[in-house]
Parts: sequence; C-alpha cells; structure tokens
Amino acid sequence: MSDKATEITVGAYLFKRLHEFGVRGVHGVPGDFNLALLDLLEENGYAADGYARIKGMSALITTFGVGELSALAAVAGSYSEHVPVVHIVGVPNTASQKQQLLLHHTLGNGDFRVFSDMSKNISETFCTLNEAADYVEEIDRVLRACWVRARPVYIALPTNTVFQKVDGSRLKKPIPLELDLNPEDVEQEVVDQILDLMYKSQNTVILADACSIRHRVLDELHQLVMKTNLPTFVTPMGKGAVNETLGSFGGVYVGDVSRKDVKETVEGADLVLFVGGLISDFNSGGFTFHISRNKSVEFHSDHMKVRYSEFPGITMKYVMQRLLNQIDMSKIRVTPTTIIDNILPTRESQSMTPDITHAWMWPRLGQWLREKDVVITETGTAIFGLLETRFPADVTAISQVLWGSIGYSVGALQGAALAVHEQKAERRVILFVGDGSLQLSAQEISTIIRHGLTPIIFVINNDGYTIERKIHGAEAKYNDIHQWKYTKLLDVFNANPEKSKTYQVRTKTEMDKLLNNRLFATGKYIELVEVFMPKQDAPRALEVTAQKTARLNKVLNV
Amino acid sequence: MSDKATEITVGAYLFKRLHEFGVRGVHGVPGDFNLALLDLLEENGYAADGYARIKGMSALITTFGVGELSALAAVAGSYSEHVPVVHIVGVPNTASQKQQLLLHHTLGNGDFRVFSDMSKNISETFCTLNEAADYVEEIDRVLRACWVRARPVYIALPTNTVFQKVDGSRLKKPIPLELDLNPEDVEQEVVDQILDLMYKSQNTVILADACSIRHRVLDELHQLVMKTNLPTFVTPMGKGAVNETLGSFGGVYVGDVSRKDVKETVEGADLVLFVGGLISDFNSGGFTFHISRNKSVEFHSDHMKVRYSEFPGITMKYVMQRLLNQIDMSKIRVTPTTIIDNILPTRESQSMTPDITHAWMWPRLGQWLREKDVVITETGTAIFGLLETRFPADVTAISQVLWGSIGYSVGALQGAALAVHEQKAERRVILFVGDGSLQLSAQEISTIIRHGLTPIIFVINNDGYTIERKIHGAEAKYNDIHQWKYTKLLDVFNANPEKSKTYQVRTKTEMDKLLNNRLFATGKYIELVEVFMPKQDAPRALEVTAQKTARLNKVLNV
Repeated sequence: MSDKATEITVGAYLFKRLHEFGVRGVHGVPGDFNLALLDLLEENGYAADGYARIKGMSALITTFGVGELSALAAVAGSYSEHVPVVHIVGVPNTASQKQQLLLHHTLGNGDFRVFSDMSKNISETFCTLNEAADYVEEIDRVLRACWVRARPVYIALPTNTVFQKVDGSRLKKPIPLELDLNPEDVEQEVVDQILDLMYKSQNTVILADACSIRHRVLDELHQLVMKTNLPTFVTPMGKGAVNETLGSFGGVYVGDVSRKDVKETVEGADLVLFVGGLISDFNSGGFTFHISRNKSVEFHSDHMKVRYSEFPGITMKYVMQRLLNQIDMSKIRVTPTTIIDNILPTRESQSMTPDITHAWMWPRLGQWLREKDVVITETGTAIFGLLETRFPADVTAISQVLWGSIGYSVGALQGAALAVHEQKAERRVILFVGDGSLQLSAQEISTIIRHGLTPIIFVINNDGYTIERKIHGAEAKYNDIHQWKYTKLLDVFNANPEKSKTYQVRTKTEMDKLLNNRLFATGKYIELVEVFMPKQDAPRALEVTAQKTARLNKVLNV
Repeated sequence: MSDKATEITVGAYLFKRLHEFGVRGVHGVPGDFNLALLDLLEENGYAADGYARIKGMSALITTFGVGELSALAAVAGSYSEHVPVVHIVGVPNTASQKQQLLLHHTLGNGDFRVFSDMSKNISETFCTLNEAADYVEEIDRVLRACWVRARPVYIALPTNTVFQKVDGSRLKKPIPLELDLNPEDVEQEVVDQILDLMYKSQNTVILADACSIRHRVLDELHQLVMKTNLPTFVTPMGKGAVNETLGSFGGVYVGDVSRKDVKETVEGADLVLFVGGLISDFNSGGFTFHISRNKSVEFHSDHMKVRYSEFPGITMKYVMQRLLNQIDMSKIRVTPTTIIDNILPTRESQSMTPDITHAWMWPRLGQWLREKDVVITETGTAIFGLLETRFPADVTAISQVLWGSIGYSVGALQGAALAVHEQKAERRVILFVGDGSLQLSAQEISTIIRHGLTPIIFVINNDGYTIERKIHGAEAKYNDIHQWKYTKLLDVFNANPEKSKTYQVRTKTEMDKLLNNRLFATGKYIELVEVFMPKQDAPRALEVTAQKTARLNKVLNV
C-alpha cells in the first residue's frame, strides 16, 4: 500500500487538500455520524455559500440524513448560483450499511443510498469513500471538479473510512486548478470574429453578469474595460464585477426595469459584449432584455456565442486573454455612457417626508460605502434597492437573485464575515436584511458573536414580507410577521455589551446622523441598526419586477 | 365539465378535503409560487409533524424549490416515523414550465421536475395537478393514501391550477378512511394460531411500540390490556401507547438498556405479543432485544408474524378485533409484572447533592405530570430521561427516536400546541429540550407567541450537546455551544409580559418549589424554565446507548 513515512488518514488527506484551496473554517453541526470527522479540526449551508464567495471555495460537513437534508436548500442554491461548496457527509459505517441496520437518521427501510441520490441532482459530481474507492484519486477528482466547474460536490464519508491510512506523498503535488485549454484554432476563430464585429461597430457596450464573477474572469474583464474604455454595465447579479467608479461605468441594466437612459444606451448599442450572462427572471426584469443575437457576443464558462454561431466547449477565460492580446485599439470607437452617481432624489428630500424611503436610502448608503466593503443583500427590498447604489472600488456584493431563498443573507453574512476575518482583511462586512427574512435564520447572529466577528447589520423593519406583498396579497395576513425586539437580539445571544452596539433609526435625519458618525461603522464591533421604513414602500425596480412576476404566476388575471 | 351550482376551485376542493380530515391550521412560509394558495385560508415541517401526531393528519404548504427543499429533512422525518403529512408545493405555472423559463427558485437549467423527484423518495405517493390530471380523483387518492398508510404525500400545485373549476358535488361523499379488510380465512387462521400460543403459554407479555400509535390500534390495544390484564411493556417509541397507571404496566423495555427486572420479565416470558414494532437502534438499546421469533407474535400495519410464519398484507387492526372477540380468558394465565413508579433515587436525595441530576429529575417530573398532558422531548438527554417516568393516564408523548433531527421538538411543540388549541382541549403541552437543540429552531417560539399558544418549555442548560459528548468528544470544542440568555427569549419575541413567565432553577430545592407552585403550570400562559444541570450528567439509558452507538460507529476502537 503506502510507506509508513508518508502515511496519512483519509480524513486528514481530505482536510489538507481543502486547506490547499484556502478553506480554513468548515461549516456544520455535530451529529454522531460526523463526530469522528470533526475530531480533525475545530469548528451551515448558507454560511458555506457566503464563505465560498469570498475565498473561492468552502466546505460544509453534515451528518447522514437529518443533517444533509437540512442543508439541501442551501446546497441547491449554491448549485443554482454557481458557488463551489464541498458537501462532506458523515455516513454510517459500511458494515452497518451492508447489514441494512435500522439506524437512527434513516428512513427505517435499510436504504442507505436514498439521501445521496437526492443530492446527486444538485451536485456537479460526487463520490462515496467506501472500501471500493480509490480514496485519494476520488478526493482529488471531486475537489478539482468543484473548483473548476464552480458548483457543489458531494462526498460521502463512512465513519470507518475516516481513519483509513493512505499514501500522503501525493499531497506534494497540488491539485491543478487551471481550466483545460481551448483548441487553439477554434479560439483564434472566435477572437477573429469578435474583433471583426468590434472594429465594424460604431457603438459597443460591455455587459457583465453573474458568471463573470463565479467563473473567475474579473481580471480579464477589468483589463478589457480599462483597455477599451467602452461603456460598461452590470446586471443585478453582476453588481461588483466591475469598478463602478470608472467614467465608463454606465449603471445597472435590467431590461424594462432599467433606468430609461441606461435602457436606451444598452439597447441602442450595435454590439453588446455580454460576459457571464445568467438571464433569470429577477436578473432580467422578468425576461425583458432587448439584446438581439445578431448584435451580441456571449462569453460563458463552457461555451461562446458570436452572433448566431455557437462554440460549445470553448471557455471565455482564454478567449478574453487572447482578445486582450490581439485587440487594436485604434480601430475601436468609444461612445459616452450614461452618468450614474449616488444622487439623492430631490422630490424625496428631507424636508418633504421625514420617513426613510427606499428611493432616498439606497443612494445615501451608496455615499456611505467604502472601498473593499462586502455588501450582502437579502432577495427582498434590499437587493432591488441596491441597484440604485453606485459602489466604490473593489466592493464585493453577495446576494441570491436566482435561487432567492429567504433567510439566505444572514447565513451568508456569517460565512463571509468569517472568510474576511481569516484573511485578516481590512474590509467591512455589511448586511441589509428585512425583518421577515431575518427571523428565518436569526441564530446565525449567535454564531457570528461566538466567533467574535464584527459585521454591521441593517434590519429593515417594514412590518412583513414586502416583496411578497408586491407580488400578491398587499394587505394579506400571511404576509404579516410577528414583530420582534430586534435591538435586543445581540444581548439575548450573549454579545459582550462593550463589543456590540445597537441603534434604531426612524427618519432620514436620524439615518444621516448615524451614517455621519465616525465611530459607527469602524467595523470593530458587531453593530445592529433597526431601520424603520413604511410598510408599502419599495424600490422602484421591485415594484416593476413584482408586477411582471405576478403576471407570470397568472394569479392576478383569472 | 361540471354544473355551475356545484362548481368549486381546485384549491378550495383540496382545502375542504383537508378540513374533512380535521386539518385546520396549515403550516408554511409564504413564497410567491404559493401565495395564490394561501389566499384560500389564513396562516414549517416539524410543526406539521407535531400537529399530525395530535390531530391525525396535517398539511404543510411550501413554495417551489427553496421552500420545499427546506422542508425535506422534516418530511423525511415524518416518513421515517410514520406520520401523515400532506406536503403541498406551489409550483410555477405550467406554461412557464413548458417554456423551461429561467425562473427564480430554480436551478437555472429549465428542469422543473428535479425537486419533486427528490421528494418522491420520502413520499408514500404523489401527484402533480397539471392540465393532464384528474384533479379531484388525484386529490382524493393521495389524501386517502396519506391517512391509511400514515406517511407523507406530495402534491405539486401549479399557480395556474389553483383557481381551475372542478365539480364539488363529490365532496358530499367523504373519502373512505377504513383500511381494506383482510381476507377472512387468513385472518381467522392468524387468530387461531395466536390463541393457540396464548392458551399454551404460562407467561405472556404485551409489548407496545411506535406503530401501535401511528397506525391507530390504541383502542384495540387498550381493550387487549384491560381484558387480559397481561403484563404490559412499552418501547421508547411506544411511550404513551398504554395506560401506565394500570397495575399490569411493567415499564419500558429497551433490550440491554432496560432496568434489570424489566429485562428479566420480558425476556423470561414464553410468549411476547409485540404490537407495532419498529426496532431501530435507539429504540432497541442498540439492537439488543432478546425476543426470539419462536416465542413471539408481531403485529404490523401491513403484515403479521406468528412465530416463524409470515402473513403479508394482513393488517393488525382487524386481527386484534377478531382476537378480542374470540379470546377465552379462562384459558389465559396471568403472571405478576414489575413494579414501576416515579420513585426518587435515594442515593441522589436532596441532602446528598443540590444539583439537579437526571436520575432525580425525571421521576420527579413524573410525579408532576397530569392526565392528558402532551409531553414533547428532544432526541437528546430528554428522550432517554423520559424512560424513567411513569405517565398518568392519557398522556401523549411526542419525540423523534428514529429520525432524531436536532431541533425537531421545538417545531413539533408549535404544531402540537396549535392542535390542542384548536381542539379546545384542557391539555397542557410541555416541552423538554436541551440548550443545543433549542438554538436550532428557537424562532418557533415566536410563532407560538404570535398564535397565543401557552406551552410550558423546560430548557435544559447543560452547556452543549450532551448526547454527542456521550457518543464522541466528551470535552471537544465542537460539542460546546454559545450560551444564550434563554429567559430573555420570550421578551425578544415580543411576548406580552402579563401573559408569559420565565424561571431559572439550579437546585433540586428550587425545582421542587417550582413544581409545587400551583400558579406555575396552569397552562394559561407561555412559560419558559431554564433548568441548569451538570454538563456531563446524563440519564442512565443514554449512557448505555451512547456506548453502543460509539462502538457501532467504530471510532473508539481504531
């Protein structure tokens, strides 16, 4: 088998490989089928997702049945949104499985594959580390797939496998992370076609979407923007992909939900370089992108489209690199873009209504944000509000526009804050969450306190599920929530009163005062701000999107 | 199609049928694909499970993808433990599905069946109410299967189907709930064989387990116990199945984990009538039941076993009824049973140690319980402690010994308290939960407060996951938890201070005083008691079971 000097246990091998990927904190809840695993280190699915969005990859450990199923909604979200999470499940030992024992955490029917079968649907690939497995090859294969494909993978680890010995000498060679190269002739053909279109175009724009972030082409994208100076836009899921302080930045394009001048500029272009597109309903103003195939180039992780031509298997990263090398800037015409800034609406000025409205708050928050902030928004009023905010440079935005699981943002906050803490980065981690969503996963704040993390949490108290009110049932009882005393949460979760602060703001003046307070938001304490907002007030983009969604659900017009 | 007079919408038809089953409160979280459904009524998976255990059946409404996957661990638990829950999922309208639109709450791959496919593994049966479905037949078929088989079913309801019109005249005829009859000749043969064994036996005992409760033979079981006066025992999952105040009640049989005299009596019997058996690890002292096939009769919902003979498809209910009709008591020999009572341990008396120990607390609580109490215990120290408690008559016990999902009991509490409230029953609903488990689902207490429910909640503060410490990692950091200020939870969740009370007890004297306080536990307020117990103290049954589990996980001896 292996020689004694390099011998290592399967569990240790797995964790050393994860360490190689930058994974330090591991997320999970103890259960007896994973306790042996947890012996190998010290320390939930949304947190794992948030962590991966900062550090590139994360690991989630759960126990058989009860634990893994509890994590499915989160893992499905990571699958949906292209986030690489390694889901490691501690499963009963292989002898118990063979005997089909009626163990706890089972369906009582002796079927030990039912749960892994459920996870296969939401995993890029999976492995079961039983006796028949080639442990190290399988671990390496699955971890590489997770990274390269940027999607969850599933590893079933029986309790008796953890301490099996394997040859650790393989660890000397890191798992290769590079994408497979494109065939050179096809790649050149694609680049030639794109350059040809760009040189002919009078009016080219760049549109950056989710997969430019998830499939790691932000460096290439940044170089493209800097080199060409072309008007650049982002979709909602593309927020944070480009430097929004550049003069070429033109705002957020969301089809018919866009600002009028943004819509006109993007749709009036005769060439759109669409990088990492993911045209989901909420990301596209309810499928109202008006960008025709004959004037667009689509850059994807696993294929390219140049007008009507498709190039399956060609990855955008190398195409972009070749494009940058070969582009002749003297042949590119650059047109002016829309002007975007965090300008407060005049009709909504302080003197008109003291209430904090979405139309006022989001540009105001945009003025307050700093370089390198991590901004997390729940898929509610917050994510739609954020579209009205121009970011400083190097801001990372985390949200779940496609999967949209309620309560996601609070878990993601914990994971993101832990990742920033591990990186010892001077970055503030800031959450915007509604009252209704916070209630679903409030205990993640306890985990945040336990680890001494110091995010700033804005709780929008608008008396219920406002996003659902806008879709259906504006005054319906099922969209009401039970009010909590949000500012007492930190104390209940046992935060050190000297290392935590809470606030309530009810007016624009109070909010202004808080945001101007230099002691607030130093990021050295955990801080929770309860922001009172009118129940039916919503960001403009949400109002429009909700109407379109309601129509699609076909419940208004029957 | 249908005539106007009896026309009714599909959604209304479904809810009227559920009403027929006694389902009033419906559990769920609003999501936009189920909002149209929620218009038809006003109002999570563990709550649905708890509700069903009181009222016989329950309904859980979730939204496509995010919602339904969040509920899977709970629904799998109901499947595992034989609890009838109707899982209704609001799915996108059929036109969107056919067009494979990239909707929110999807995996972004146009696959609209992936989530229902996942649920099929944990559903007795399912239906999708699209255009091709015969709506009323499908609803009736699936609801009957849920009730009769006592397991979850899955109904996918597209947003455009809810308001489709169907013929409501079928509602005049209730869905038949009776089990299919056994073939009479086979049933008589089974009864003849059982009676023959009983008449020959010198020493017969009855052992009642989970499925006697879940498959609704408690009346037949009670008559059998009363008519024969045979020594009667229960398994952990059978707690509450029989009247424990009867002289024939002999205690809890858990194989090698049993009290010595109980073990000797059950294993020394020459005939065991084993009703509704579900021999899972925690329910059987780690598979240490010593009851040989040649001296037992097994009563099951879908088959019978008489010694080595098996009778597939024969249901126990009618067998028990026929047995009761035909039994000749003059031919039955009744032996004395073990004596069980809530006797406090003398070595653990108040004068010895002031700490509240498990050995002292559970018999003491047994003295305090009342007839008809609903007692809910988390699968932690609580469920094992409860085995040392003799119940008053008509107590319902709710726990999740087989599935064992952490946090289950707090959700189940909400559902059970709601069910009792709807029944206007004078029953106290009492929860025993550890600190670690409470943290997983604490917000269910908010829902309890919102609905004005008045349970009594005992939070066992023993500084972490004690059940896991007993299995592995007694002092490991991963079994520690972050301490909360539990007694402040009711206030944070906005309970009316005049209609809620909190307590802390640290010694036997304090606990005694509280239990003797007549104002405590009237069941008119929500009350929360924080019970401080030593970190490593555990019920005797847990200590023994944990050792067996650790051995099975094969982590101690490698």
